[in-house]
Amino acid sequence: MSAPIGFIRSNLDRFQEELFELLRIPSVSAKSEHDGDTRRTAQWLADALTKAGLKAEIHETPGHPIVVAEWRKAGPDAPTVLIYGHYDVQPVEPLELWSSPPFEPQVREGRIWGRGTADDKGQLFMHVKALEAYLADGHALPINVVVLLEGEEEVGSPNLVPFVKEHRDLLACDYVVISDSGMFAPGLPTLLFSLRGLAYFEVEVEGPATDLHSGAYGGAVPNPGLVLARMLDTLLDEQGRIAVEGFYDNVVDWDQETRDAIAALPWNREAFMKETGAEGLVGEEGYSTLERLWIRPSCDVNGILCGYTGQGAKTVLPSRAMAKVSFRLVPDQNPDRVEELFRAHMSKVAPPEVRVQVRALHGGRPWRASVGGKGFDAAGAALERAFHKKPVLTGEGGSIPIVVDFEEVLDAQALLVGFSLPGCNMHAPNEWLSVQNFQEGIEALAYLYEELAR
Amino acid sequence: MSAPIGFIRSNLDRFQEELFELLRIPSVSAKSEHDGDTRRTAQWLADALTKAGLKAEIHETPGHPIVVAEWRKAGPDAPTVLIYGHYDVQPVEPLELWSSPPFEPQVREGRIWGRGTADDKGQLFMHVKALEAYLADGHALPINVVVLLEGEEEVGSPNLVPFVKEHRDLLACDYVVISDSGMFAPGLPTLLFSLRGLAYFEVEVEGPATDLHSGAYGGAVPNPGLVLARMLDTLLDEQGRIAVEGFYDNVVDWDQETRDAIAALPWNREAFMKETGAEGLVGEEGYSTLERLWIRPSCDVNGILCGYTGQGAKTVLPSRAMAKVSFRLVPDQNPDRVEELFRAHMSKVAPPEVRVQVRALHGGRPWRASVGGKGFDAAGAALERAFHKKPVLTGEGGSIPIVVDFEEVLDAQALLVGFSLPGCNMHAPNEWLSVQNFQEGIEALAYLYEELAR
Repeated sequence: MSAPIGFIRSNLDRFQEELFELLRIPSVSAKSEHDGDTRRTAQWLADALTKAGLKAEIHETPGHPIVVAEWRKAGPDAPTVLIYGHYDVQPVEPLELWSSPPFEPQVREGRIWGRGTADDKGQLFMHVKALEAYLADGHALPINVVVLLEGEEEVGSPNLVPFVKEHRDLLACDYVVISDSGMFAPGLPTLLFSLRGLAYFEVEVEGPATDLHSGAYGGAVPNPGLVLARMLDTLLDEQGRIAVEGFYDNVVDWDQETRDAIAALPWNREAFMKETGAEGLVGEEGYSTLERLWIRPSCDVNGILCGYTGQGAKTVLPSRAMAKVSFRLVPDQNPDRVEELFRAHMSKVAPPEVRVQVRALHGGRPWRASVGGKGFDAAGAALERAFHKKPVLTGEGGSIPIVVDFEEVLDAQALLVGFSLPGCNMHAPNEWLSVQNFQEGIEALAYLYEELAR
Repeated sequence: MSAPIGFIRSNLDRFQEELFELLRIPSVSAKSEHDGDTRRTAQWLADALTKAGLKAEIHETPGHPIVVAEWRKAGPDAPTVLIYGHYDVQPVEPLELWSSPPFEPQVREGRIWGRGTADDKGQLFMHVKALEAYLADGHALPINVVVLLEGEEEVGSPNLVPFVKEHRDLLACDYVVISDSGMFAPGLPTLLFSLRGLAYFEVEVEGPATDLHSGAYGGAVPNPGLVLARMLDTLLDEQGRIAVEGFYDNVVDWDQETRDAIAALPWNREAFMKETGAEGLVGEEGYSTLERLWIRPSCDVNGILCGYTGQGAKTVLPSRAMAKVSFRLVPDQNPDRVEELFRAHMSKVAPPEVRVQVRALHGGRPWRASVGGKGFDAAGAALERAFHKKPVLTGEGGSIPIVVDFEEVLDAQALLVGFSLPGCNMHAPNEWLSVQNFQEGIEALAYLYEELAR
C-alpha cells in the first residue's frame, strides 16, 4: 500500500467530519439570500486547500467567487492536471420531502445524506483529500496541479468561461479532471463518453391584465393556464419526438458499436423503475431507455405556476401562467440554435389573444469524449486499481457545459470520473453519496494522479 | 322623502365608517389561519343586527358559524322576506397586485376599495342599514324579516343547506332576497334572470415518486407537467366547446326572446376588453360574449402548480403536477353529473405511466329565475324608485349555488338584486364598490321592503 493510500485510510473519519462542515453551509447559488453562504463556502475551500498544501486564492467575479489553488513542484516533464469542481448546490425545495434536513448531513444506511453530497461538494472534496494525502508531511505530488472551483455551476456558470479565457496561463494544463458524475452501478467504476447539453427557458403567458372572477369572465376571456397547457402540449409528438421544427437537424446518429456497448451494460428495467417510482417509462420511439437518456435529446417541464394553488377552491381566472421548460441536447446541437427554434415554435403556437414572453435562463453545449489515448487509459487504470474492476464507458444525461469550453480554451483533454450512484437524488430531495464510494473515490483519484504521471 | 330614506341620507358617513370596521376583519373562509377572524365577523354582524333592532343569534355549524336575525312584528298578513348574504371573503393573493392593502379599506375615485366590498360584506351590510333605517327610533318594518348570513360561501357553503333544512320553520319565508350580484352598467339597475352553476376540481398527476434530476432522467421518465398539460389540452376543442363527452346533454337552448334581449343590452366590446386587459376575447363559436358568460357553460384553469417555480433554472423532473379546473354550468346541468363526466374524461386521457387523482372541491347548481309575478315586479319598482331608471334583466356568469336550494327547501321565490359594477374585481386584487351604489343600494333595498309589502 502506497503512502497516500495509507494516509487516506487512516484519516477517513476526519475527512468525513470535515466534509460535514462543508455540507452544512447552504451554498444555493440560485438564491440571492444565500450569497453570504456561497462566499463562506469559497473561503472554507480555500482554507482547506491551503491546509492540504496548495497555494489557494479567491478570485472575485461579477457573481459568486472562484477558488484557484496550485501546486507546481512536480517539474516541467510532469503533466499538469486541472481539477474542476463546483461548490454551489441546487435549491432544496420542497423541504417537506427531505427525510433529514438538507444542510444537516447524516450517515444512514451506508450513505451520507444532504444537499451537495453527490453534486458536487462531496466529489470535489475527494480531490482535496486525495491531494492532501500526497502532500501531507511535506511529501510531493507526481503531477502539477491547479484546482479550479466555481460557485455558479447550478445557475449556468455565467462567469466561468470569461474567467478561464482571461486566465489561460494560470489554468494551462494537459488534462481536466472532473468528478461531478456517477458510476453506472455500485462497485462498477465508470468513465464518461458523453454529456448532454442544456437549453432552459421560462415561458410566460398573460391573458387578462389582472386576476378575474372565473364566473364573471370565464368562457369569454382567454385563460392563460389553458393556453399554456395547449402550448406545452405542442412540444412532443405522439412518437415522443420533440415537435419543434428543425430541432433534430444537428443531432448525430451514434455508431452501432456505441449502441451495442450501451445495450450490453447491466441495466435493469425493474431496478430503474423502482428507483424512479414511476408507473411506466416513456420516450422516443426506436431507442432504448439508456439511449433516450444519453444519446437522444429530451424535453421536460421543470415547473409551472398559474393562478391560485393554495388550499380550497378559489374561482379565479388567472392573469398569468408560467412554465419552466428545458431541453437536454446531444452532439452536435447548439443551445443558441435551439433557443432560436424554440422561440419560433412558441411564437407559432401562441394564440393572438394572449401575450407570451420567452426568456432563456441557461444554456450549455453537449460533449463527446475523445475515447482512448493516454489520459483515458490512465483514468481506466486508476479506477481499476481502486475498485478492482474494469471501468465501463457510459453516457450521462445531465450537463456539465464547461467541459466543452475547457477542451476548447485550454486545448486539454477532459476526463470525467465520478462516484455518485444511480438514485442519488441530485437536484432532488434526499441527495446522498455512498460512504464506500467516498473512500474508494479518494483512493481512485490518488491513483489517477499517479497514473497520469506515468 | 320617507322617514327611512331620510335616515339613510343623514347617516351615510356613519354607515361607511361601520362598513370599514366590518371590512377590516380578514374573514377568509378558505384558510384555517383566519378561522378566528371569520368567527369575529359573525359576532360583529350579530351585534350590528341587534343594534339595528333585530333579534340576532349565532348558530354553530361544523364549519364557520351562521348568523340569523329576526324581526317579525309586521303581522301575519305581511310577507316574510329572508335576506341572505355571506360574510366570508375570497383569499387575497397575490398581495403585491393590490394598490392598497385588502383589509385596510380606502375611498378613492368614488370607490370603496378592499376585499369583500362587493362580494359580499359591502352588499349584505346595505341590508343591515336599510333594516336599521326602518327600525330606528322604535319604528317598524312593513315586512317580516329573517336575515341569514353564512361564512362559507366562498368554500362551497358545505353547511348551509343542512342548516336550512333543519331550520325550515325559523327560515320560512315568501321571498329570498340576495344582494351578491352586480348591475349591468353604472346607473343601470339590474335584476337577474339566471346564474351559472359550478363544478370545481383539483387534478393531480404523479410521475416519479420524488423529484428527479431532469438530466439524469429526462426523456425516459414521465414528466407530470407535460402529462398534465396534455390532459388539460383535451378539455376544449377548436370551436371553444368543452370536449368532455356528454357535457352538453343537459344544456338548455335559450329562447330567441332572451337572446334578443341580451343582444339589445348596451354592451361595449372595447370597454369590456379594457376592463379585462386581455389582447382579445375567446369562447364558444356561435355565441356572443354575453351569451358565453351567462347562458353557455365554460371551463377554466384556476391554478397550476408543478415542480420548481422560484428564481432561476432548477433542472428538476418534478414528481407531481396539480391543476385546479372548474366548469361554470348552465340550466339544467347538474354538478354531480358533471363530476362523473369529468372523472371519466380524465381517466380516458390519462396515460398509463402516471397516477392521476381527481378531487371534487366545490359544486353548485345553476339557477333560472321565475321572471314576472309580484315579487319580481316589486323588485323592479324598487330599483326604478332608487335609480330613476327601469331595471334591465341580465344573466350572471358567477354562481350562488344556494339560490336553487332556497327555492326548493323553503318554497320561496328568489330575487337577486345586486349593486356591484363591472370590473369590480370580485375574487381578484383591488376589489371595490361604488360609493354612490352603496348609498343608492341601501335606498333601493328600503324601497324593496316597502314594495314587497304592497
